Amino acid sequence: MEIVKTIEGLRRKLYPRRSGRIGLVPTMGYLHEGHLSLIRQAVQECDTVVVSVFVNPLQFGPGEDFDRYPRDPERDAEQVKETGAEFLFAPDAQEMYPRSPLTRVTVSGLTDSLCGMSRPGHFDGVATVVTQLFHIVGPDRAYFGQKDAQQAVVIRRMAEDLHFPLRVIVCPTVREKDGLAMSSRNIYLSPEERKQATVLYRSLSEAAERKSRGDFNRASEAVRWIEDQIRAQPLAEIDYVEVLSYPELEPVEEIGDRCVIAAVAVRFGQTRLIDNMIFSEEETECFVP
Amino acid sequence: MEIVKTIEGLRRKLYPRRSGRIGLVPTMGYLHEGHLSLIRQAVQECDTVVVSVFVNPLQFGPGEDFDRYPRDPERDAEQVKETGAEFLFAPDAQEMYPRSPLTRVTVSGLTDSLCGMSRPGHFDGVATVVTQLFHIVGPDRAYFGQKDAQQAVVIRRMAEDLHFPLRVIVCPTVREKDGLAMSSRNIYLSPEERKQATVLYRSLSEAAERKSRGDFNRASEAVRWIEDQIRAQPLAEIDYVEVLSYPELEPVEEIGDRCVIAAVAVRFGQTRLIDNMIFSEEETECFVP
Repeated sequence: MEIVKTIEGLRRKLYPRRSGRIGLVPTMGYLHEGHLSLIRQAVQECDTVVVSVFVNPLQFGPGEDFDRYPRDPERDAEQVKETGAEFLFAPDAQEMYPRSPLTRVTVSGLTDSLCGMSRPGHFDGVATVVTQLFHIVGPDRAYFGQKDAQQAVVIRRMAEDLHFPLRVIVCPTVREKDGLAMSSRNIYLSPEERKQATVLYRSLSEAAERKSRGDFNRASEAVRWIEDQIRAQPLAEIDYVEVLSYPELEPVEEIGDRCVIAAVAVRFGQTRLIDNMIFSEEETECFVP
Repeated sequence: MEIVKTIEGLRRKLYPRRSGRIGLVPTMGYLHEGHLSLIRQAVQECDTVVVSVFVNPLQFGPGEDFDRYPRDPERDAEQVKETGAEFLFAPDAQEMYPRSPLTRVTVSGLTDSLCGMSRPGHFDGVATVVTQLFHIVGPDRAYFGQKDAQQAVVIRRMAEDLHFPLRVIVCPTVREKDGLAMSSRNIYLSPEERKQATVLYRSLSEAAERKSRGDFNRASEAVRWIEDQIRAQPLAEIDYVEVLSYPELEPVEEIGDRCVIAAVAVRFGQTRLIDNMIFSEEETECFVP
């Protein structure tokens, strides 16, 4: 496994490997089992795998946690090495943005709800840096986690709209034993917050069961039920709870047998956690492959 | 020379040619000597040349001339064939935009003046379709004309900001014998409009001479002088006359020995023409290569 810090250096390394399939796993580092599952899938499917680690300032808003976002380059490198990925691309901000960038990639519509609403500009920053990484690496496949469901939908749509010559692969959320979705931000949680944070998974998965039993006809009923569960945790402060059509992310009234996603963002102290679950008759059918 | 209408078809054709250098000349068709000079340069420098012809609806505003933009696919094909270019990529709108695109590429700052001001959204449409074409063709070099100076600056900046793995080549404006810049829109002009339209080149080139003689200290003096020349033509209606720093396209007061561009847009009846000239001590030095 080789760590590469410059764009030119990475291009030089990848040049002789272009005849094979190249996989990219873009991350912000502080890797956990969620990231590692993406990397392992990439290693299985591709001849050359590049894991990028870049905490992208463009996707953090003012007052967000860019400065205190957790970083551990050495542990990241060890973990990537164990997966069998060939390259760890770890540019600094000067390398990615040698001057203040004037260019933005924006995806409208899909970013009007959920995190797009509570983090204005976030997905412009994500779409822009992912475009940069796609141009630097030239991957045949790029891997994203379903935990960031809106990001996955946005990137997939961007790749289609702009005719990127690659496949966007979305892999299932990896969870702790008690169901909490893996996230680099989980280390921020105090023991009590960590305990209460399991409400995200519990409420979503029980809502999915209730929905399949026919308990909810309207999206608003599911939303209210999930909100009630979360509010029962004294340290939880809801950012949003939404039930939207999937993958269009549009408001729905009657759920019926349509494929919807329940998505939540909840603050525990300074820490904002997200999670989501797809409600469908047959999950595999409406999960965008 | 082969005409290809689909993205998949073009990718298949280009796949075995990827080991050589691929050149792309994006056009809206109705080719003239300006386009042909770009194509010929591409043919000289590249192993495989793709000329794209696509009248991109996304870059026309409401009330602009998308519907009546001149088209002549057969003549275009003949002309491309004579240059020695290998592929003419001529997709329809359904192929480029199979559904209404949610994704836009925008370049701020550089698009606040000139045509960016008088054609809102125009450069978003240009940057987006050029991004699509770059992803479809995967060129090593892409060729643009200096006649569309702002477009060239915008595309170059976009390519740098987004780390596109290619070089943007800008080629000199090709002119009619009397100096009128070649443009597909010139055919709209009545004989009298055509005659008066020579004022664009005459005023710009005489202003360049006057500037080099030290006649203009301030940008506003050059602007006023050019405006006066154009206003002397009764059919000419000025859209803008601007003198800006080049290639930053920022307002300047004193010209001094800095590199500036004088750019004009003028309507003759329904027809909007643009032209520009770079004023510098040594033109080659400030012309972005």
